Amino acid sequence: MHTPQLVERVRGGDRRALARAITLVENGSEELREIMAGLAPHTGRARVVGFTGSPGVGKSTTTNAVVRAARARGLTVAVLAVDPSSPFTGGALLGDRVRMQEHATDPGVFIRSMANRGHLGGLSWATPHALRVLDAAGFDLILVETVGVGQAEVEIAGQADTTVVLCAPGMGDSVQAAKAGVLEVADVFAVNKADRDGARATLRELRQMVAMKDRADEEWKPPIVMTVASRDEGVDELWERMEQHFAHLEASGELTARRRTRARDEVQAIVLELLRSRMGRIGDEAGLDALAREVAEGVRDPYSAAEVLAKELGADLR
Amino acid sequence: MHTPQLVERVRGGDRRALARAITLVENGSEELREIMAGLAPHTGRARVVGFTGSPGVGKSTTTNAVVRAARARGLTVAVLAVDPSSPFTGGALLGDRVRMQEHATDPGVFIRSMANRGHLGGLSWATPHALRVLDAAGFDLILVETVGVGQAEVEIAGQADTTVVLCAPGMGDSVQAAKAGVLEVADVFAVNKADRDGARATLRELRQMVAMKDRADEEWKPPIVMTVASRDEGVDELWERMEQHFAHLEASGELTARRRTRARDEVQAIVLELLRSRMGRIGDEAGLDALAREVAEGVRDPYSAAEVLAKELGADLR
Repeated sequence: MHTPQLVERVRGGDRRALARAITLVENGSEELREIMAGLAPHTGRARVVGFTGSPGVGKSTTTNAVVRAARARGLTVAVLAVDPSSPFTGGALLGDRVRMQEHATDPGVFIRSMANRGHLGGLSWATPHALRVLDAAGFDLILVETVGVGQAEVEIAGQADTTVVLCAPGMGDSVQAAKAGVLEVADVFAVNKADRDGARATLRELRQMVAMKDRADEEWKPPIVMTVASRDEGVDELWERMEQHFAHLEASGELTARRRTRARDEVQAIVLELLRSRMGRIGDEAGLDALAREVAEGVRDPYSAAEVLAKELGADLR
Repeated sequence: MHTPQLVERVRGGDRRALARAITLVENGSEELREIMAGLAPHTGRARVVGFTGSPGVGKSTTTNAVVRAARARGLTVAVLAVDPSSPFTGGALLGDRVRMQEHATDPGVFIRSMANRGHLGGLSWATPHALRVLDAAGFDLILVETVGVGQAEVEIAGQADTTVVLCAPGMGDSVQAAKAGVLEVADVFAVNKADRDGARATLRELRQMVAMKDRADEEWKPPIVMTVASRDEGVDELWERMEQHFAHLEASGELTARRRTRARDEVQAIVLELLRSRMGRIGDEAGLDALAREVAEGVRDPYSAAEVLAKELGADLR
């Protein structure tokens, strides 16, 4: 499939084209430049909600329940599951297949996993790129699901318009959450498996933490919803809170601000990635190996080596 | 403390100076340039061993046992505990204090945690910088301990001369390990808590995985050691395997190759970090905000925005 064709088919919501485009994002393909240019005019319509939380809190179950809630309201939904800690998709894909069964025959639902290959932090443009693809394909709602509550996961979830942080009773999630900076990005909390022992304690603990924490968006106090996603309990309330947050984002101008920040980060990440790949290519000509040898031997310090290399790139570091 | 003074005291192994220098690394201080330049001629002597593994495998206990083994052999040791998933040091520092008790009065041991603040992947030079500080301070052995077996942890551990991957029975570690690409970087495996049920099964599983996997360094087949670190069992054998691996590194020329790769990565990371910080500074002048607005509105695609920004940086991206 040629790029203009692929762009056209993605816009039409063709599943094979969508899958192919996201694979190209995963692989950091050269064609991305043309694809993103073709899709750009058709973006900006979809609403993006991020879901994050430790393994075992019921992330897939909750995402699935939210997909059902969206479909019941006549909205089309794409789910993007990102595993930032893994260079492979294996595990996540298995989850997909299980989840796909419920929605396999529904043309209004698209579910896809994405690995985060390559160097640490190297693919910070991958999630925005994949969101761009799904946005241009015309989905009303995009759910970004990330595994774990490390900083990478939090950052990916934080690229959404609304970020939902999931907890479950007795998993020490709230402590984890505080550690990884989840509190700063959470717009809505859901205590899932709320029928289990300790749910009230988790709720209390979260309430205290929310009350104590300053947020960038001072006008929004993150609500906490109790859910049992496996039985669809509390999912309507979760949906309502998500809607309220979106209304707040629109009314306050925060939506525009968040999307601009996302675009800004994406552009910077592309510049860095292109520079990184150029550094790799010109490495030998620029004498990077020789510089590295000198640094390893202690005859040159890493900053003076960095200056020589930057000069070769034509960049002024001052 | 002025920088030349700090450099001098670090070289003398002064604890306060060491602590201060690593804090400057953590904070990405401006003074790093001068400090690294001052330390460079005094580096390249220390042997660096990385320890990684899931929470609960007994990483601190094993590191502690290896510290004792090193001290029994008359070697000085620094332990650097890096938490790549957290922007805070809180948790790790607590662990330090507990561990410090055993070695508090031993001037031959230095233990320090380091957080990985800032943007995802932004501090890929932080661990090499901290290693540089400890190396210049004259420690014979530096143990780098990372939390978890995500890709970030694996990459940090992989910056060592020798990487030890810890497992424990019945924790599904081997599956985790395969997922995060641990097998590619492991030079020695230790199955800790080897007195527990399932230790033989873990050993078998690991053996199969090692046998199946291709490694970059074909001449070294990673040995698997059974340990009960809390009782010092198997620690002498672990030490021996580490020694054998180091001897192999020296004999094969792989030590030089690894250290050059480390230096190369460090230099590239510095270039990218300096460019990133420059992008932030010149953001407004270069019209990054205006570019981000256009990208967010879909009137410009992110790659053409990246090109405009790169031109402002003076860098040629082609």
